[in-house]
Amino acid sequence: MSGITTYAVGETIDLHLLIKQMTKGTTNTGKPFLTIILQDKSGDIEAKLWDASDQDEKAYQPETIVKVVGDIHNYRGKNQLKIKQIRPVSPGDGFSIADFLETAPVSIDEMSSKITQYIFEMRNPNIQRITRHLIKKYQKDFLEYPAATKNHHEFVSGLAYHVVSMLDLSKAIAGLYPTLDSDLLYAGVILHDLGKVIELSGPTSTTYTIEGNLIGHISIMVNEIGKAADELGIEREEVMILQHLVLSHHGKAEWGSPKPPLIREAEILHYIDNVDAKMNMLDRVLSRTKPGEYTERVFALDNRSFYKPTFHE
Amino acid sequence: MSGITTYAVGETIDLHLLIKQMTKGTTNTGKPFLTIILQDKSGDIEAKLWDASDQDEKAYQPETIVKVVGDIHNYRGKNQLKIKQIRPVSPGDGFSIADFLETAPVSIDEMSSKITQYIFEMRNPNIQRITRHLIKKYQKDFLEYPAATKNHHEFVSGLAYHVVSMLDLSKAIAGLYPTLDSDLLYAGVILHDLGKVIELSGPTSTTYTIEGNLIGHISIMVNEIGKAADELGIEREEVMILQHLVLSHHGKAEWGSPKPPLIREAEILHYIDNVDAKMNMLDRVLSRTKPGEYTERVFALDNRSFYKPTFHE
Amino acid sequence: MSGITTYAVGETIDLHLLIKQMTKGTTNTGKPFLTIILQDKSGDIEAKLWDASDQDEKAYQPETIVKVVGDIHNYRGKNQLKIKQIRPVSPGDGFSIADFLETAPVSIDEMSSKITQYIFEMRNPNIQRITRHLIKKYQKDFLEYPAATKNHHEFVSGLAYHVVSMLDLSKAIAGLYPTLDSDLLYAGVILHDLGKVIELSGPTSTTYTIEGNLIGHISIMVNEIGKAADELGIEREEVMILQHLVLSHHGKAEWGSPKPPLIREAEILHYIDNVDAKMNMLDRVLSRTKPGEYTERVFALDNRSFYKPTFHE
Amino acid sequence: MSGITTYAVGETIDLHLLIKQMTKGTTNTGKPFLTIILQDKSGDIEAKLWDASDQDEKAYQPETIVKVVGDIHNYRGKNQLKIKQIRPVSPGDGFSIADFLETAPVSIDEMSSKITQYIFEMRNPNIQRITRHLIKKYQKDFLEYPAATKNHHEFVSGLAYHVVSMLDLSKAIAGLYPTLDSDLLYAGVILHDLGKVIELSGPTSTTYTIEGNLIGHISIMVNEIGKAADELGIEREEVMILQHLVLSHHGKAEWGSPKPPLIREAEILHYIDNVDAKMNMLDRVLSRTKPGEYTERVFALDNRSFYKPTFHE
Amino acid sequence: MSGITTYAVGETIDLHLLIKQMTKGTTNTGKPFLTIILQDKSGDIEAKLWDASDQDEKAYQPETIVKVVGDIHNYRGKNQLKIKQIRPVSPGDGFSIADFLETAPVSIDEMSSKITQYIFEMRNPNIQRITRHLIKKYQKDFLEYPAATKNHHEFVSGLAYHVVSMLDLSKAIAGLYPTLDSDLLYAGVILHDLGKVIELSGPTSTTYTIEGNLIGHISIMVNEIGKAADELGIEREEVMILQHLVLSHHGKAEWGSPKPPLIREAEILHYIDNVDAKMNMLDRVLSRTKPGEYTERVFALDNRSFYKPTFHE
Amino acid sequence: MSGITTYAVGETIDLHLLIKQMTKGTTNTGKPFLTIILQDKSGDIEAKLWDASDQDEKAYQPETIVKVVGDIHNYRGKNQLKIKQIRPVSPGDGFSIADFLETAPVSIDEMSSKITQYIFEMRNPNIQRITRHLIKKYQKDFLEYPAATKNHHEFVSGLAYHVVSMLDLSKAIAGLYPTLDSDLLYAGVILHDLGKVIELSGPTSTTYTIEGNLIGHISIMVNEIGKAADELGIEREEVMILQHLVLSHHGKAEWGSPKPPLIREAEILHYIDNVDAKMNMLDRVLSRTKPGEYTERVFALDNRSFYKPTFHE
Repeated sequence: MSGITTYAVGETIDLHLLIKQMTKGTTNTGKPFLTIILQDKSGDIEAKLWDASDQDEKAYQPETIVKVVGDIHNYRGKNQLKIKQIRPVSPGDGFSIADFLETAPVSIDEMSSKITQYIFEMRNPNIQRITRHLIKKYQKDFLEYPAATKNHHEFVSGLAYHVVSMLDLSKAIAGLYPTLDSDLLYAGVILHDLGKVIELSGPTSTTYTIEGNLIGHISIMVNEIGKAADELGIEREEVMILQHLVLSHHGKAEWGSPKPPLIREAEILHYIDNVDAKMNMLDRVLSRTKPGEYTERVFALDNRSFYKPTFHE
Repeated sequence: MSGITTYAVGETIDLHLLIKQMTKGTTNTGKPFLTIILQDKSGDIEAKLWDASDQDEKAYQPETIVKVVGDIHNYRGKNQLKIKQIRPVSPGDGFSIADFLETAPVSIDEMSSKITQYIFEMRNPNIQRITRHLIKKYQKDFLEYPAATKNHHEFVSGLAYHVVSMLDLSKAIAGLYPTLDSDLLYAGVILHDLGKVIELSGPTSTTYTIEGNLIGHISIMVNEIGKAADELGIEREEVMILQHLVLSHHGKAEWGSPKPPLIREAEILHYIDNVDAKMNMLDRVLSRTKPGEYTERVFALDNRSFYKPTFHE
Repeated sequence: MSGITTYAVGETIDLHLLIKQMTKGTTNTGKPFLTIILQDKSGDIEAKLWDASDQDEKAYQPETIVKVVGDIHNYRGKNQLKIKQIRPVSPGDGFSIADFLETAPVSIDEMSSKITQYIFEMRNPNIQRITRHLIKKYQKDFLEYPAATKNHHEFVSGLAYHVVSMLDLSKAIAGLYPTLDSDLLYAGVILHDLGKVIELSGPTSTTYTIEGNLIGHISIMVNEIGKAADELGIEREEVMILQHLVLSHHGKAEWGSPKPPLIREAEILHYIDNVDAKMNMLDRVLSRTKPGEYTERVFALDNRSFYKPTFHE
Repeated sequence: MSGITTYAVGETIDLHLLIKQMTKGTTNTGKPFLTIILQDKSGDIEAKLWDASDQDEKAYQPETIVKVVGDIHNYRGKNQLKIKQIRPVSPGDGFSIADFLETAPVSIDEMSSKITQYIFEMRNPNIQRITRHLIKKYQKDFLEYPAATKNHHEFVSGLAYHVVSMLDLSKAIAGLYPTLDSDLLYAGVILHDLGKVIELSGPTSTTYTIEGNLIGHISIMVNEIGKAADELGIEREEVMILQHLVLSHHGKAEWGSPKPPLIREAEILHYIDNVDAKMNMLDRVLSRTKPGEYTERVFALDNRSFYKPTFHE
Repeated sequence: MSGITTYAVGETIDLHLLIKQMTKGTTNTGKPFLTIILQDKSGDIEAKLWDASDQDEKAYQPETIVKVVGDIHNYRGKNQLKIKQIRPVSPGDGFSIADFLETAPVSIDEMSSKITQYIFEMRNPNIQRITRHLIKKYQKDFLEYPAATKNHHEFVSGLAYHVVSMLDLSKAIAGLYPTLDSDLLYAGVILHDLGKVIELSGPTSTTYTIEGNLIGHISIMVNEIGKAADELGIEREEVMILQHLVLSHHGKAEWGSPKPPLIREAEILHYIDNVDAKMNMLDRVLSRTKPGEYTERVFALDNRSFYKPTFHE
Repeated sequence: MSGITTYAVGETIDLHLLIKQMTKGTTNTGKPFLTIILQDKSGDIEAKLWDASDQDEKAYQPETIVKVVGDIHNYRGKNQLKIKQIRPVSPGDGFSIADFLETAPVSIDEMSSKITQYIFEMRNPNIQRITRHLIKKYQKDFLEYPAATKNHHEFVSGLAYHVVSMLDLSKAIAGLYPTLDSDLLYAGVILHDLGKVIELSGPTSTTYTIEGNLIGHISIMVNEIGKAADELGIEREEVMILQHLVLSHHGKAEWGSPKPPLIREAEILHYIDNVDAKMNMLDRVLSRTKPGEYTERVFALDNRSFYKPTFHE
């Protein structure tokens, strides 16, 4: 994929880009400048606009599409863009914000029908009804939200993409270990991070909501399962087990789960979540790394730099 | 207070006691015996009934009141009762189980009216209505349950007694630090452990319920607050803040709170809970310790032995 | 499966069993007795033989097959056998030790050909040759050893069974995440615990060897890979990567890996190992647990008791 | 309270301020400048004086009062002052350094008489005499020192203010838990941080002394209690208990207490210290935060940002 | 060395031994017995005296010398003595308690003169005078006390023996690293554990005193150094540095040092203490282990079992 | 020693120096500059060359010797050099790179013969032959490599210097504790870090090799010992013990040793390594510190600042 993140130091760019963030600063000597994060589908880059006027500040607000000419240079080990020309793109130019956002590599429709199919495969009607009820209630956001503000699946529809990958992985594992209840695995996967549609602010410029900070997606969804069961009139043990699956999916108290996994499927759900999240992080950093070299350090993987062997292809 | 825990090694007892637990064992040489935990209001003691018959096993089930004669001796550092005579007390003898249970030193009525008064003092109607709704919903159990199966306030009405003590402490602290919102402190205190009426099995022979083990009293009560708000039609920030107070009252993720305290009253609630729980534990072990000596080790206080100074008359 | 572990307290048994361990003791009052661990394919049970003579001590050495009559009773929460009659089985009685050993549920031949097939599927000749060389070198022991002295796969051929399950899981995961190099996964799985044939003493009455204690299976196999490469004249990066896969498969320094995973397949290998080991442990304890009840505490799973839901038919 | 910390970005100030710290720097391009921390009773702000001459360096030493005109701007998320005019204030202008120092909200006299009163209320003469002796010995510094260089009560007379608040809290708690020995609590509160008058350099521009770094206020005061007892001829257990109260008030070895609390009042003293220190930190950051927003991160509170609810009027 | 610890299971002994501890117990069936710990210079062994009378209890108090005949048998992995005959030794029999106590392998006189010599070699008069003052003040106890109640140097004169070994080690290290101030090392070694003469109860049947538990040998000696300096009229930095050496010798807060080492000699003192303590522990357990075997687990060495190679002839 | 690190802020230098590192940067306003690390035998300093041309970039590559005139100034607490004149030195000027590299204070020849002597003193022929074989195999690099990229002994021949110091320390300790096998200590010292000649890139501009990162010097040398034994036909327990010494010398799993020390000499080797590494670090920072002041913080010593007492001469 070509895009802003694929240019090398020293190259000149002439591109349409989306403003993701903008902050105003003042140089040591008192002159105003703007720090602008510009993005396209490939990722983002920081740029500086020196000697910025008040009009500039108004013109270059987040979610504005701009035409930019500039040079890529290196600043403290990361690429930065030195803007030579910049102007907002007029509404009639045929661009839409969605053209500049990184999204899941699978379409929303495809993901939606895949999840529907997995729910259809459930045999336990209580588990099936609660899962279907909740996915329906939050369907629109669920299909658009990222899975996190950073670290992994931090792109449009990242949450649904993470869930779909985990469902496929669950199916494979349940096939190999027949004692696993695939209904519980599927429901656990679909619900485990659904609270993020309340914890996070939305699909773009994603931040934590106040409820996200004070309650968290785990407790939010445990409550939602309780409410769903009440509304559907289900009073069976399945309700408590679904709540437990969500509650325990971070694996340990110190990682945010007030109870550790205490049923078989909860233990395995925690691993399925980990494998998929880590594969996503590894694939992203390794795709930007040449054979025989190391990735940048990955904070959410204990700050490790991974090595890319030379003998692949 | 006199009672079974107040006798010294070598003394002979002749008392009515309640059977708290009974388990059957077999000696090294294959003979059956019963291990019986006997209790009265002062606490409990382990006893052995050797050469126990099948009738004995039937006769000495938990919650049976018995007349016992025996000697106190020391077994591995703890007092044990060697039973010389034992017989069940006939129904007409005028004893009731309640006569043998340790209970809070304040009456249920007194505690109940004190809590009502604190709720009455709340000025924020949303906080007040949710608190009143939940205390009403669980009133009977709340006034009878212990606060835990062991460690602190592990006696009949221990939960309500813990709450009342914490309310008084909250009032004193709010008086000294006027920035504290006493409504939040009172509501936080009343609700923080209320989920224990679902987490625990009941006021006597208390164990954890399955829901207690898999979900826990914190998440149970966070859900209950959400339901109460729905039923009362309250959609204000107060709901989330009350949920946060309950959620965070263990202080840290590794102690079972998926979010740490993030508002002023949540931070202080955690300390109020600690001070009251620790004073209860300290008072119990120190009341059984002579000046110039150490208490037994207290597991929930990092296994410390506390010293009782000699100069407190 | 019927067997010694399937009897309930109070039942009388009349079975052929194998002596797994025997230790002599003395009662408080100075009389000798034997503590005998008896096993069959279902597991093992502790038994006491009171008033044991010197002949008894000689007759009931480990690896002796005996005919036993006795009663199951409960001693400190675990089943124990009270021996009423016991006698060694004469050589001509048609029993062999193997009849009493727990073994993998798949035959050695089947496992062996499955592993051969996975090696055959490898496309990188260096990886393939080293793996084949080492599996050949230790083939006999590899197919008979357990994977551990306790915790998981602690039965005859447990090591090979663990490897075969992990290979199938690797294949499924590599199918879902195409960036993974399946050669590395398969080789990593086959070699990761192969050092256990030197670390452990053998398929039965398994203990740690001195080399196992002082060097450990990880370093043993890292050395073996180096030697194999020397003997095969391979000096490519693949050697180092295979060593790294083995070295890092415990995931963290504090779990015994001097280097954390630093390539994609090493990270995933660690998870595959965990999922298979945990499923084995969970299946074993849950198979002995009734719906609606808890398993015994599992030391290697952070001492948790797992709950078995009631709605799995 | 108005003052330098109450201005917003973009505003112009024209104020008398005190220089708290001054350091000379050189720009990237080799030109000298001064970084000056200016303070008044409301707190402090960083300012830059560009193209500073040698005279400037001499004129703007710490503890100089200056008249400043300048603009507030934002530099990396914190307010900074861009100096437009600055001049030292002549001695005759009627300002004193004390006019610019943040101080406790209660007068020294009031705090002093309150502490005297608490000492007067002690009933145990040994505890009373040692406490009175030490407070007298260090009275002047005790009433002027801060309680720390940062984190909490880091202002003139902060130490005494912290002690007075803790005494009031002790009285309230001792009133609710009658088993507590209020003499020990009061003495523990008064002495617990008194070693800070040796550990710290003084009431302004506070740093750690060498003795503070190498021995620490806890051990310093334990020694002082020993000396005081010697001078007063007291050889009773009270001496050791007072030493223990000071020694253990950080609660755990890893927090700097070589012994954990081992008497009831030591355990509670640790909590009283925590509640008062945390309330001071919380009140300071929350007073600068609008309802519905978060405070800055507070390092000494595990780096948390606290939320200020919207419903407090 | 021959002695009670050198007998093997099955052997019969006929020895004079010292009673170290005695506790009375009751068998399951209610009969009294005595558990007696018997010792000689080689160590100790547990013995049981069944059917003990009241006279027995009086006759076999700690510190009584007895003549015992009995058999060594194994009880739960440790040797135990089954007493066949026992009688107290009459005063005139020519034994003294000291004949049965394990002591340092070097005489008190030799150790005393060695320490005197090291003090004599000090060149800094302040360090020398304080060290000499304190060693003189506690000379008698210092030369007789053990260095601990268990773990290392837990025998008569163990403290002095530990100090002398550390002095020799200090001299060797200071010879190799000339930047080290040997005066500080010697003084640090001599004073570091001197507080144990107050922390511990005495040379035999050693326990912790109340002051030992509540204050600890580190703080006790820091105070003593302060007092010594006062009495000698020394007000130089050396006093604080000596206090720091003692204060920091456990190396980290969590190991009981409220300040970590902050001068060069303090850092090295911590290592010298460790090397000598560990060599003492290792030598003791390895002396009881055959080549090719493992020692018992050593609690104070992270519960490790050490291996004794076979090639040390 | 005079040199670039010995100048004070404000002084002007006119020196020949070696370029250690060079990186190109761009100022905020887009102008290119070079950051150059210059070194001589005393250490290194950072310098800025403003308005750097493309020729400058080519001329001032690492390992170039330059003549520099400039001023020392302070930038964020560290000395920096402001270059006024700089020019490369022509080949004929009689300087060699070695003139500017910090090296061990003892000559390679002296270290080499000392190590030979220690090997000669070994009495166990197996230990001696393996050690001699390996030191011979890597002799050249062993005598030139540093012991680390930073922290301690990070200079030319630092590895051999560290080993020689440790050998002398081992000899002294083995002299005091005669149970120690000096052969094992000497061999352990010589081999413990020898894998660094593969782990690190070389004597100057030292970085980690890929094998260093993925396998590490410990596992590298364990393998080498195995190979050496194979080549020498040694199959005795000594091989395993030497491997264990290397494997365990970091002391704990979390510090990189997959097995903790399990023989006496392994435990002591860990301490000898620590004492020598820490003395090297302490001596370096304290040599740059004035009496009565603190060193810079030392990252590898838990980020402590050490105090230099005033009374050493």
